[in-house]
Order: sequence, then structure tokens, then C-alpha cells
Amino acid sequence: MRLRLVVEYEGTRFLGWQIQPGGPTVQGELERALGTVLRHPVRVRGAGRTDAGVHACGQVASVPVRRLPDDLRRLLRSVNALLPDDVAVRSIDVAEDAFDPRRHARSRLYEYRIWRAPAPSPFWRRWSWHVPRPLDVAAMQAGAAALAGERDFAAFCGADPHEPRRTTVRRVLESAWREEGPLLVYRVEATAFLKHMVRNVVGTLVEVGLGERAAGATAALLASCDRTRAGATAPAVGLVLVEVRY
Amino acid sequence: MRLRLVVEYEGTRFLGWQIQPGGPTVQGELERALGTVLRHPVRVRGAGRTDAGVHACGQVASVPVRRLPDDLRRLLRSVNALLPDDVAVRSIDVAEDAFDPRRHARSRLYEYRIWRAPAPSPFWRRWSWHVPRPLDVAAMQAGAAALAGERDFAAFCGADPHEPRRTTVRRVLESAWREEGPLLVYRVEATAFLKHMVRNVVGTLVEVGLGERAAGATAALLASCDRTRAGATAPAVGLVLVEVRY
Repeated sequence: MRLRLVVEYEGTRFLGWQIQPGGPTVQGELERALGTVLRHPVRVRGAGRTDAGVHACGQVASVPVRRLPDDLRRLLRSVNALLPDDVAVRSIDVAEDAFDPRRHARSRLYEYRIWRAPAPSPFWRRWSWHVPRPLDVAAMQAGAAALAGERDFAAFCGADPHEPRRTTVRRVLESAWREEGPLLVYRVEATAFLKHMVRNVVGTLVEVGLGERAAGATAALLASCDRTRAGATAPAVGLVLVEVRY
Repeated sequence: MRLRLVVEYEGTRFLGWQIQPGGPTVQGELERALGTVLRHPVRVRGAGRTDAGVHACGQVASVPVRRLPDDLRRLLRSVNALLPDDVAVRSIDVAEDAFDPRRHARSRLYEYRIWRAPAPSPFWRRWSWHVPRPLDVAAMQAGAAALAGERDFAAFCGADPHEPRRTTVRRVLESAWREEGPLLVYRVEATAFLKHMVRNVVGTLVEVGLGERAAGATAALLASCDRTRAGATAPAVGLVLVEVRY
């Protein structure tokens, strides 16, 4: 028997999704709260292992349970009452026994926010990267569009000790910027992502936007498969896992 | 000589706008940062004295200066570099010597956010009041509409030691709810507001939305001028001073 959870969190004070020694993790908080309410130890499995400081509003997780709870709404309230206020379970449903949030996901959707006004924003400071210099959005849009399709993203891949390198080919279904007042929001959907892929793409596209690289640089970078040529990794603070699609 | 500032802040850790003993205030932070950059003590005057915990994205303030700075953009950067990250100056312009942000304001615009999903929101927790029970938005809308126009708001007025009671008549130019997904946003513009007026109105309208009061109750309350009959004061966390109009 298994439950399916949708989870929202502010990543600021966490070492990331995955349990690890040395500090708080989202998985750790969920296992503690769920274990207390369900009265047995649980292992929570997430669709994506977000890094330290990365947020989510639509992380999906599965939890094996010894028996199905009678009242899922009451379970939701009890779990949220035990979680710290930077993590919340948005919904709980009964899932098929075989449900694997990671392997069954068809795609993941991330958004990355840039706050591009001259002054920083007290409101957006925990959810955006402040880039006060003017950005050429048309050039960034062209660079983003060049990433759509099935491609080898080796040039945008950080080293991942958990994931012995297999293929670095991924299929990007959407890759575009939209303007929302002083915010510039990058929306990217792919079948799966490599470690630091979104932040490396954003770091590179911001260099395009600042005029430090040509808009055509993204295509050339992809072709090179050479990580040392991509831009700096954009800070975690701007990144949100928005949705996991099945 | 005088400057006009637009100021954004997260009110969470402040005792409010106005300088007072015992804790941090927005005015205090601004006077400290501006005094350092301008190299003389300054007195900052704001358009509205927001209470403890109340936010602003469009507070307007004036600052008398001994000489006009050569480079306002550089001044903006310097002041923001000295401010804590929950306060930012969005813009600085030269104002007329006689400019008084409080007395010259034609109207103030506030928004109040309610997060009405069953689960709390890590993202909105610092900017909204969580009301997990279902709300009758049509009834709240009718109650809000009854407040528009020039009326005596005595029934919605908290005691204000700073403001010896003169008239409690105010003119409300806009008073309406809008739905933004799980958020319910109350937008209210008035020539001026009484102490706790928006929060007392929201507290009352939420009681209407929960079915604890009839939608017609707002009009009856206004007519009564009796504070003891209004609803509870809604928490500060949901309130934002959005704009001051001149």
C-alpha cells in the first residue's frame, strides 16, 4: 500500500531534498512527521533530488504504508501540523503499489526567477537571483529556444557522485523566458535533468543577456559537450521544481 | 532640498514603520543607512505608519538633505547596500521642498492576502493569512462592495494613541476581492485609513465568508459606529501597503 504526496518547500535552510548527515533535509523532515503520524518508520521517495537551497511547489513523493488511513484529509492536517513552516504537504492520495515517483515521471518542469530591477526585492529575495544590470531578453530567448529537442547536455552537466555517468542526452520539451514586470522567469520542461543543468543553462543565458556571449553560443556549447566552456552555475535561490508530470 | 523615496519591506521582524524603543523599525533602518551615506543625520517621513508585521511594496517617504546628490542611481545602490535584506529603496527622486508624503497623498492602496487551501503554503506564509475553511467569496464580495463611498468607519477603527480622535469618516474608492488560485486578495483604496481599519474589515469579511455573519452585516456595522460589534482584527502578516497616490 502506498501514498502519493505533492510537497511544497522553501529550500533556503535545507541541505537539499535527500537525507544526509550534517543538516536538515526535506526528506528527513517528511520522514519524521509521517513516521510520527503513521506510527511506523517510513522511507519517502521523491521524484527529483533538489539541491541545497532549491525550492519546490510540486515535488512528488511516495510513501509505503502498512495500512491505508481512513481519512486522508485528517492525515494531511496532522502531517502539516508536525512539519516546520518551510515544508508543507499540499495533497495526499492513494497510489498504486508499484508507483515510483522517480521512474514513472514523464517530465519535470522547473522555473528560474531573475529579479532584474536596480534595487533588490525584500519580497522576492528568497525566490530569485538579483541581476541589476540590463539584460537583452531577445538574445536570451534565442539562446533558450536553441535548447529544445533531444540533445546531449554534457556541456551543462555538473559532476554528480550519486549518478554514475550514463547518457547525458535529455529531451527538452519547453525552454523559454517570460517577463513578469521586474521578474524574468525561465520555464523549462524536460524528460529528466542532469545535475545542475537548469542552473548551468541559466548562468550561460544570463551571460548571453549581459552581452558577454553571443546568442548563438548555446548551440555551439551543446555541440562541444565541454562543461568548462559553459557559464557559471546560477545560484540555487532562483530555482523552483514546479511540477512533475506522469 | 528634499528627496522622495519609494520603499519596499517585509514587515515580519519590525515593530512597524515608526521609530520606537525596544526593537527594529523600518524608519530606523532607513535613517541609519541614509545618514551614513549622506554623512548627516536625517529624519525620514513616511506616507503611512504601517503597524508591526505589516509589509509594503510602495511606501513613500521624504528625506530633507543638505545638498542634492550628483548621482541618484549611485545613492540608491549605496543605501541598499547598507540596508538589511528585508528593506529596500526602490527609487529615489528629487522632490519639491514642500513635499509632504503624508499630507499630500490623495489616496492609499492596500492589499490583504488570504491563503485558503487546506495545507499551509511555505511560499506565501510570510505574506498571507491561512484560512483553511471554505469561504463564500460572493458573500464577501457583497460585504466589501458595501464599504465603498464616503462613510463613517468608527466601527472598524482600532484605538490609536498617536492620533487623537478627530473624524472617523473616510472615502473608500475601491473595495473588492479577487481570486488568484488558492489566494483570495482584498484590494482597498481610500483617501486615508483609520488604525487597523483594513485588518478589522478583513476580519469581519472573513466571518461573513465563513457564514458566521450575514453579507448585509457590513452595512449594519457601519451604521452602528460600534467597534465592539465588528469582527476580530485579521493578522498583520497578510497586509501590504501597495501604493500611495498623489
